[in-house]
Amino acid sequence: MKFEPWHLNSKLMKRTIYLKKKTLEEAKAISTEVAKLIHLKPETIPVIHSVGRVTAEPLFAKISSPPFHCAAMDGIAVKAESTYGATEESPKCLFINKEALFINTGNPLPPEMDAVIMIEDVHLIDSERLELREAAYPWQHVRAIGEDMIVTEMVFPENHKIMPYDLGALLACGHQQIKVKKKPRVLIIPTGSELLDTEQTDLNQNIPAGIIESNSYVLSGLITEDGGAPVRHPIVKDDPLKIKEALLSDEGTDLILIIAGSSAGSEDYTRPMIEESGEVFVHGISMMPGKPTLIGRFKDRPIIGIPGYPVSAIIAYEELVRPILFQSLHLMKPDRPKIKVLPTRKIPSKLGTEEFLRVKVGKVGEKFFATPLPRGSGVITSLTKADGIIRIPMLSEGLNENEITEVELLRPVEDILNTIVMVGSHDLTLDILANLMGKFYPPIFFSSHPVGSLGGILAIKNRICHMAGLHLLDPETGEYNFPYLRQYLKGIAVRVIHLVYREQGLIVQRGNPKKIKGLKDLLRKDIAFINRQKGSGTRILLDHTLKTLLLEQSQIQGYEKEEYTHMAVASTVASGIVNAGLGILPAAKAMDLDFIPIAKERYDLVIPSIHFEDEKVQRVIQTIRSNEFKKMVSQMGGYDVSKTGEELFE
Amino acid sequence: MKFEPWHLNSKLMKRTIYLKKKTLEEAKAISTEVAKLIHLKPETIPVIHSVGRVTAEPLFAKISSPPFHCAAMDGIAVKAESTYGATEESPKCLFINKEALFINTGNPLPPEMDAVIMIEDVHLIDSERLELREAAYPWQHVRAIGEDMIVTEMVFPENHKIMPYDLGALLACGHQQIKVKKKPRVLIIPTGSELLDTEQTDLNQNIPAGIIESNSYVLSGLITEDGGAPVRHPIVKDDPLKIKEALLSDEGTDLILIIAGSSAGSEDYTRPMIEESGEVFVHGISMMPGKPTLIGRFKDRPIIGIPGYPVSAIIAYEELVRPILFQSLHLMKPDRPKIKVLPTRKIPSKLGTEEFLRVKVGKVGEKFFATPLPRGSGVITSLTKADGIIRIPMLSEGLNENEITEVELLRPVEDILNTIVMVGSHDLTLDILANLMGKFYPPIFFSSHPVGSLGGILAIKNRICHMAGLHLLDPETGEYNFPYLRQYLKGIAVRVIHLVYREQGLIVQRGNPKKIKGLKDLLRKDIAFINRQKGSGTRILLDHTLKTLLLEQSQIQGYEKEEYTHMAVASTVASGIVNAGLGILPAAKAMDLDFIPIAKERYDLVIPSIHFEDEKVQRVIQTIRSNEFKKMVSQMGGYDVSKTGEELFE
Repeated sequence: MKFEPWHLNSKLMKRTIYLKKKTLEEAKAISTEVAKLIHLKPETIPVIHSVGRVTAEPLFAKISSPPFHCAAMDGIAVKAESTYGATEESPKCLFINKEALFINTGNPLPPEMDAVIMIEDVHLIDSERLELREAAYPWQHVRAIGEDMIVTEMVFPENHKIMPYDLGALLACGHQQIKVKKKPRVLIIPTGSELLDTEQTDLNQNIPAGIIESNSYVLSGLITEDGGAPVRHPIVKDDPLKIKEALLSDEGTDLILIIAGSSAGSEDYTRPMIEESGEVFVHGISMMPGKPTLIGRFKDRPIIGIPGYPVSAIIAYEELVRPILFQSLHLMKPDRPKIKVLPTRKIPSKLGTEEFLRVKVGKVGEKFFATPLPRGSGVITSLTKADGIIRIPMLSEGLNENEITEVELLRPVEDILNTIVMVGSHDLTLDILANLMGKFYPPIFFSSHPVGSLGGILAIKNRICHMAGLHLLDPETGEYNFPYLRQYLKGIAVRVIHLVYREQGLIVQRGNPKKIKGLKDLLRKDIAFINRQKGSGTRILLDHTLKTLLLEQSQIQGYEKEEYTHMAVASTVASGIVNAGLGILPAAKAMDLDFIPIAKERYDLVIPSIHFEDEKVQRVIQTIRSNEFKKMVSQMGGYDVSKTGEELFE
Repeated sequence: MKFEPWHLNSKLMKRTIYLKKKTLEEAKAISTEVAKLIHLKPETIPVIHSVGRVTAEPLFAKISSPPFHCAAMDGIAVKAESTYGATEESPKCLFINKEALFINTGNPLPPEMDAVIMIEDVHLIDSERLELREAAYPWQHVRAIGEDMIVTEMVFPENHKIMPYDLGALLACGHQQIKVKKKPRVLIIPTGSELLDTEQTDLNQNIPAGIIESNSYVLSGLITEDGGAPVRHPIVKDDPLKIKEALLSDEGTDLILIIAGSSAGSEDYTRPMIEESGEVFVHGISMMPGKPTLIGRFKDRPIIGIPGYPVSAIIAYEELVRPILFQSLHLMKPDRPKIKVLPTRKIPSKLGTEEFLRVKVGKVGEKFFATPLPRGSGVITSLTKADGIIRIPMLSEGLNENEITEVELLRPVEDILNTIVMVGSHDLTLDILANLMGKFYPPIFFSSHPVGSLGGILAIKNRICHMAGLHLLDPETGEYNFPYLRQYLKGIAVRVIHLVYREQGLIVQRGNPKKIKGLKDLLRKDIAFINRQKGSGTRILLDHTLKTLLLEQSQIQGYEKEEYTHMAVASTVASGIVNAGLGILPAAKAMDLDFIPIAKERYDLVIPSIHFEDEKVQRVIQTIRSNEFKKMVSQMGGYDVSKTGEELFE
């Protein structure tokens, strides 16, 4: 399979075309083959530094353990015969330092003795004699030589991963140095002209001139955890010669990962450069994220082309590189724990592609629920926030709501059991709440899903959350939240804890260059607006206020374009894409934007009564009522905490 | 061998007496309290070295990610407006480098552009113009500023343990250095006059002068895994002043572990020394192993007195110290995975004591079975060989055979699923087999349980093993194994694979000082014998041969004393406790002993037909048939491999 140049434009000419895409299963079979190129040499290291290493030869006991007969108890060493006949009624008297020798646990048994009597059963008569009221039997309380390990027996086979316990066995049977396999050394080459090195990035200039390279560090962390030794190459520009130089830079590594440059872009030189000194077996895998992954051989080493998007890079690593490392060490790759979950909504997925869907998992009542996180392969937080990954198979078109599905957990299940699931409107004070909950021991994880106020009500109705955050104005009565609870949650008892009052208003660029004074200005032709999603309290507030003011929605440019959080609205304004959005004051302050107040609103937490007495929920309420929480919220500005933590009733 | 001076009764006066024993539950409650003495200070470290560390403050995004609008695909950047109206039928033509700019993934979107078109959809006309057959919509294939993280948003809360993925998020949102909690520093003080330092032990002299200290290294390994920083103090003799000096040696640690010296022996100075500058809250816990554990406060720090026996030390660490470390870091202690198992036999346990029973676990057919390992707290191999731990509660008198029980797994369940369970007679070639099986990828773990040949037959009958190792001579016919299979395994189809022929004989001291010539000499008054357990093939061979020679068992001194393996018999002879035992030649050779041949016998593996086609079983058979196996066995001496690997039929 040779690279076909694509003649047209000087730039496009160089672009590579995928080989026929492989399924993940096919790709894995191929990576199992290339893994065989790796042969780890042995090295000799001290036992005391060997945890996590893998034996390169079977290890046999060099001495027995214990190495001699020794006392198993503190007491006296005797010859059992000399105690025969001793009873309560007719005790036997022994001379100290002649017939009875004091001995402590672990001390060698003196040659003439064959039993130990516990100190508790020794009765002193005077400084020279002691009395026994029970006879000893031979080898009583004696640890015989080799009780634990006998010299020459095999203690660990070859390819055994050494755990901390094992140090005890190895040291006790006389090993000081052992032969282990060298760690697989992995050369990591980050490529891309747009990349900046974190250590060379001046972050005082606020917006860096490129994308900060992080994949190589993430991969280094994963490689280290998997028992390998990462070797990071400095960032390489999209230049075929530089890439070639990097590939040739280290002869001592066992495996090469080259990050990015392996998709179909005009500057994707990875494949032709590999093919100059090797072969490419796979280029393109039908998985998502992770499609532009490459598997090949460069000289005598396996090489994996890792996609540049952070989530793709991790999936490609875990699916293809991790197995190679374990195989090279002859270890079984441990599986992640799996549990059954119910998706909180229908999740369509592309037929013909295996998708790795990142989800938040929460246990509400008796069931585990999974809520999908953003699916973009550039969204690293979709992995850092994830509790697990659902694999949607190639031949599936997705998951249905309430269809039992398996999730691979990324966090211990105990963490998930200790997680409060909050669904509903987004508010910045929820971060403060989450942070304070994490300070308890044991910590409680506060997981908030921003889907808007009506989404929160729906989540309570569907019994998939412990609490919902709402700020829903009823236009008829001017009342907050309760009218909606009455309307949508018939038959579901709930309790309402007030969180904060907060100010909603128009977030506009710094200095308000467009001189926006109120909602009426949104109708101006020179103003672009960013809206919040349907069902959010902020959207309802906007629509209600527009109606009151008799302003026509359809005349607002951007009314149809929606964001899901206050911060996203503020960010869109800050970036200059739009001129205004409706949101809360702290979001404007956080982004250093101007703010035109529109309304003060009430934000409450609604808790189904069945969860109200749950210890975790009570902890949340205690935290909301704490002075620390109120103080931190006040410091943000734009909040009124005068009634924070109070229970509200209709 | 150097002996410590034996201790006078004056020492006995100093012996400490346990406080009233606490239950493990009570002890844990107390250790939760003492853990509160630990306050970990923050330190600032580079993000790239922060995996495994715990955040000391919430971390907020310093910049948005991506930090600007950027191309999500390789292609061209355009103003969407300029493409409006393009269709297959009426394509739109754009000027390169004016209306269309080539752009690669991750590059900032040029200010005047608002959409990206994939390179695949770009049709070049010439070097100056290109053609589009579909219109772009605004923000198509653009990653908007802050798509992943928005400046000022909370990315991780305080007390978050940093995983490799998290580096990606932290670097991308502008963190280079972060504040994490200092690792809890743990001072480990090994005490005991009988202890030798591994690095100062000359193992060329074969039998060391004491017990090699290993607990401190095992604990260091566990502490490191749990996120702490161990600080090992050199070995301290049983001398109150030295112990005091050690306790006072490091003011910078957060927690002290003092190993041994906390039971009721004459030289157990730990408690009085702690009480000089602190308090002892717990001394003695009703658990096994681990009873002589101590919990206290020394100055302003928690101190735990760890028992000296290696298994006790580990149990005490895991039950009491590990929770303190996790608590100090505000992390949840992860639980071990648990599965349900059936004990292969009744296991009585002491009422009033919580026992930590180490077990081998194997899956045979559809069920998981647990076989207990030696219960002595000095037997470290009972932990290194264990697959799991069964906790037998205080109020239980033990487990019944076939009573479903929970086991905490020490190894991944995949390893257990990949384990062949062999029960039966002991032979040294099984170590070679186990070692070769572990060299495969994925490795197969070969777990052999030495319970004698009849025990092996019973295990097949009870369906708790994949294969049994037998060398059972039928005295009537002189035939090996088959008569027993006919008699005991009616209705169970089995296949028989021959392993080796081997020589059985009398193992005697080097140079044969007692001039033993054959079994007849065992009747001599000056000869002490060590026997094998009932049901072992060796025992049956002995009994049969004695009968043939008309020798009386009862006249053999030590006939009742039993060992379970050939190596244990050889070891007992080597230690001088006895003069002779019956066993195989390689055991004698391994221990450098003399050997008087008695009989050549056949050792076979018997495999229930239902397991015969199991891939793991087939691997075992392939390995037995390999030249490598036969070569290694031949090299041991005392084996005949001429028919090794052949299937035998009645």
